[in-house]
Amino acid sequence: MSSLLYVSCIISLLLQAGLASKTRHFKWEVGYMYASPDCEEKILLGINGQFPGPTIRAKAGDTIHVELKNALHTEGVVIHWHGIRQYGTPWADGTASISQCAINPEETYVYRFQVDKAGTYFYHGHYGMQRAAGLYGSLIVEVADGEEEPFHYDGEFNLLLSDWYHQSIYDQMVGLSSKPFRWIGEPQAPIASTQNPPSQALSAFSSLLINGRGQYNCSLAAHLMEGSSTCKLTSKDCAPVVLRVLPGKTYRLRVTSTTSLSSLNLAIGNHKMMVVEADGSYVEPFIVDDMDIYSGESYSVLINTDQNPSSNYWLSVGVRGRKPNTQPALAIINYQPNSPSKLPESSPPVTPEWNDYNHSKSFSSKILARQGTPKPPSYAERQIALLNTQNKINGYIKWSINNISLALPPTPYLGSMRYHLKNAFDPSKPPDNFPSDYDVMKPPKNPNSTQSSNTYVIQFNSTVDVILQNANALADNVSEIHPWHLHGHDFWVLGYGDERFEEKDASQFNLKNPPLRNTVVIFPYGWTAIRFVADNPGVWAFHCHIEPHLHMGMGVIFAEGVDHVRRIPKEAITCGMTANKLMNNGLP
Amino acid sequence: MSSLLYVSCIISLLLQAGLASKTRHFKWEVGYMYASPDCEEKILLGINGQFPGPTIRAKAGDTIHVELKNALHTEGVVIHWHGIRQYGTPWADGTASISQCAINPEETYVYRFQVDKAGTYFYHGHYGMQRAAGLYGSLIVEVADGEEEPFHYDGEFNLLLSDWYHQSIYDQMVGLSSKPFRWIGEPQAPIASTQNPPSQALSAFSSLLINGRGQYNCSLAAHLMEGSSTCKLTSKDCAPVVLRVLPGKTYRLRVTSTTSLSSLNLAIGNHKMMVVEADGSYVEPFIVDDMDIYSGESYSVLINTDQNPSSNYWLSVGVRGRKPNTQPALAIINYQPNSPSKLPESSPPVTPEWNDYNHSKSFSSKILARQGTPKPPSYAERQIALLNTQNKINGYIKWSINNISLALPPTPYLGSMRYHLKNAFDPSKPPDNFPSDYDVMKPPKNPNSTQSSNTYVIQFNSTVDVILQNANALADNVSEIHPWHLHGHDFWVLGYGDERFEEKDASQFNLKNPPLRNTVVIFPYGWTAIRFVADNPGVWAFHCHIEPHLHMGMGVIFAEGVDHVRRIPKEAITCGMTANKLMNNGLP
Repeated sequence: MSSLLYVSCIISLLLQAGLASKTRHFKWEVGYMYASPDCEEKILLGINGQFPGPTIRAKAGDTIHVELKNALHTEGVVIHWHGIRQYGTPWADGTASISQCAINPEETYVYRFQVDKAGTYFYHGHYGMQRAAGLYGSLIVEVADGEEEPFHYDGEFNLLLSDWYHQSIYDQMVGLSSKPFRWIGEPQAPIASTQNPPSQALSAFSSLLINGRGQYNCSLAAHLMEGSSTCKLTSKDCAPVVLRVLPGKTYRLRVTSTTSLSSLNLAIGNHKMMVVEADGSYVEPFIVDDMDIYSGESYSVLINTDQNPSSNYWLSVGVRGRKPNTQPALAIINYQPNSPSKLPESSPPVTPEWNDYNHSKSFSSKILARQGTPKPPSYAERQIALLNTQNKINGYIKWSINNISLALPPTPYLGSMRYHLKNAFDPSKPPDNFPSDYDVMKPPKNPNSTQSSNTYVIQFNSTVDVILQNANALADNVSEIHPWHLHGHDFWVLGYGDERFEEKDASQFNLKNPPLRNTVVIFPYGWTAIRFVADNPGVWAFHCHIEPHLHMGMGVIFAEGVDHVRRIPKEAITCGMTANKLMNNGLP
Repeated sequence: MSSLLYVSCIISLLLQAGLASKTRHFKWEVGYMYASPDCEEKILLGINGQFPGPTIRAKAGDTIHVELKNALHTEGVVIHWHGIRQYGTPWADGTASISQCAINPEETYVYRFQVDKAGTYFYHGHYGMQRAAGLYGSLIVEVADGEEEPFHYDGEFNLLLSDWYHQSIYDQMVGLSSKPFRWIGEPQAPIASTQNPPSQALSAFSSLLINGRGQYNCSLAAHLMEGSSTCKLTSKDCAPVVLRVLPGKTYRLRVTSTTSLSSLNLAIGNHKMMVVEADGSYVEPFIVDDMDIYSGESYSVLINTDQNPSSNYWLSVGVRGRKPNTQPALAIINYQPNSPSKLPESSPPVTPEWNDYNHSKSFSSKILARQGTPKPPSYAERQIALLNTQNKINGYIKWSINNISLALPPTPYLGSMRYHLKNAFDPSKPPDNFPSDYDVMKPPKNPNSTQSSNTYVIQFNSTVDVILQNANALADNVSEIHPWHLHGHDFWVLGYGDERFEEKDASQFNLKNPPLRNTVVIFPYGWTAIRFVADNPGVWAFHCHIEPHLHMGMGVIFAEGVDHVRRIPKEAITCGMTANKLMNNGLP
């Protein structure tokens, strides 16, 4: 080949590469702002004055570059890019105490990472309970130019679901760390309550939000249908979301849940949904009337606008797994050219009973990998069984994993491990199993547990099975749903089961078409088995995505191939023992 | 002298020194806690589960050693030792962004400093508005062993005065930085308010506290005297403070104000007070019926229990300088052996009208140095006139000094100046004066101002006069009280005057017996002149002690002899550009 031809080939390749993948720049400031997400004005954490934060849209292969300025006055901040695996950039995972030092007030940190896989993702605060204070937004990765989704649609909508508490996160955190324990689920005590006993109207304590909008203490449907005066929709902030559709089309709904606590179910009046994506991986399409979605999960569903076009329809989001105190969140599917304010003719769909777990299990079992999804290695070198228990430490209620309640260290693991600092965290090894005589169907015989910052060190590039084992909580006949989220990886969901996992259950693992996820639920009194390959050098949290549960210690830390981590940007380690240690030589 | 005698002399001297001055160790944790300081339960910042924080008692010459652990979840913290000059330990002054990096969550910082002068002091948070969240306590320094106070008393009481807002400091800070401005003085909006219009009962928004106790929305006197049902005193937290005295004795009351906003006046039914100390310096004793005290000030007064011993008496604390929305705070002077619950026969003393400034000026003018107090140098090498104005920056309301609103840098000055870092703050010089045609009696003609982190660099060991010049705020006919506090020094108060300071006013300066203070007030439309010697290497804040005003930029920074600062403990500079710069050589 002539050198001229060679050069033009190179140029052409470079141009293609340039076209194919971009660096997308964002300049964000995190700060408190007033907003009325459920028609009640509160302060919350916004980005650039927006709540939820700005939606990032990118294409697979793009690089995301976010200059994040902390405009809070006394609080640190970080942002986790939920579902992005951060290959080669573990310091961009956005987990305080784990992957980076929290960004100090007035400081700026650059998150720079590649989004290598199309899918529906989101981002959120990962420090204290800042997610519950409103610090979240959507991150949508489209297929790369020249690629195609394996399904057709004419348009898409994005629905970011959350729950919203009127108590500040400071109040919530103090309550969670109090003796006696004060659960955020309790009706909040308004200032007037001690003088005027709280009325029925005040007993609701939270709202469900769709794209940051909900209606506190108001049945939107009843309001709109009966003209009830209890709903205040004067603020644009809390007007219901309207999805404007044309008849006879197919729409993709991207649905993500970043709830602090609530497990959710979503249904649309008269319309079935075809599930096509879960957590950024394609699934074998299946059709449902309603779908469960747990905190930390994302789905794409397709709907056909094949119903009577002269009507509008309700989209309804209800609570699963806890007896709800809140009204369902509602949105309107507006068939054009109907007016969006034309009321649907039928009532909002009623989501399943909160405690119909069989319904939920049935939904989960339908989620299978679409053909072409990478398959899991056929065996795992290590099996880690993680018993989820509710415990007491010095009388304070905690959650523990194999009897250890996670207490994060002040110096982030990534830096202290990479630079082999002593005493930065508990070097002991947490157990890979739990006592064989532990009765998961009963409250713990000995509820006492301990706190630790210790970590599971995983052999680089090895394959690991994790058995998440649920159990009875402290009270009799209580076992809760916990959605577990793994940072830095997707994992295969090999199976679910009831009661205690037995070795023989492994023979039933689905190795044929297990779905790839980053979040998976354990059902009450059940177990869930997952498999992942520890091929991503870094330190990764694996934890219950319920914000108060993580705050109460419900998580573990996986460290893998840390010596393969490249030079960590200084800004990620400018705190605690890493800064102290690395300043030694620099001090005048 | 024989060597044996010599050695025993040395030993004896060492022993005396050992007896004379001690190191006093404290281990503190700052955290949120539930408390009901005014009978309404809220979360606030406490130390070791106490609010107010523990009282430190020491003797002049002692070293205070406080291991302060930050047990907050996402917030930094520092503690300022108000009135302690920190000679040789500028990194222990406890001012975030100025003298040290904020202590990160789960980290511990050691404050170690000498208390060289007997007096009544206090400590408090100095980051964001954490003082207003309850982070404060008393610091009392007794005379050294073998020394005597220049007045006699039989017993003493400590009264730490504060004000308490039901709105969280986060809400307050957002309001202060909002367009339109939301002033914390507005009645707080309880959750129920939008449904049930706030009743009159809800229009009070704050309480005055004595030693952390007050009564929200309750006239304690009326309650006790008439059995009104509006007062809830069931909680011990908010029971009135009782001072148990014996008849015919002399008591010292140490009175300190750490209010967020309120200027106060204190009076005791039937008893006169003799003022003997102000801000840790003795003053020429004078007798008053009531005393003003501004945020940041401390006094000692003597009272004689020479009244009818069969009665108890009210101590009353009211608001000055702003039309009060709050009931006076009350305490009970309980003549033993009367029951403390025996009601005083006379009504609580009524403190002066809030806007009787002549009364206040008269009180301030009586404060003169006791004989033996160090005298000021007879002239100053530099005069800095600081015009206090209310301004707008991009439509946000700010306070400015010589048209500059203070914006603190993320990297503390002490470290960045000591290690000569570039770009850590604005290197420009703020002006030593303001336009000669500025009309202090009218709102600013051009209300626009700018933000800066620039500093006044003061020649080491030079003498400086500062003229604090008050002016009209943004609204017509409004000029507010501002108590200015200087870190790292006492200063002499040379004089006060009305309207604009003229050079000829300097001829009236009191150089004979000006009082030594660390805090001084400027009256509406007035000026106050102070003199200090810049003999303390370090970087020192000089600012209005009203928490929201400082938050809105009302302060300046003095830097003096920074090159004489000894090696700064690493923990004080482990953040921002100092950490980054000094990690250069240390990075693997």
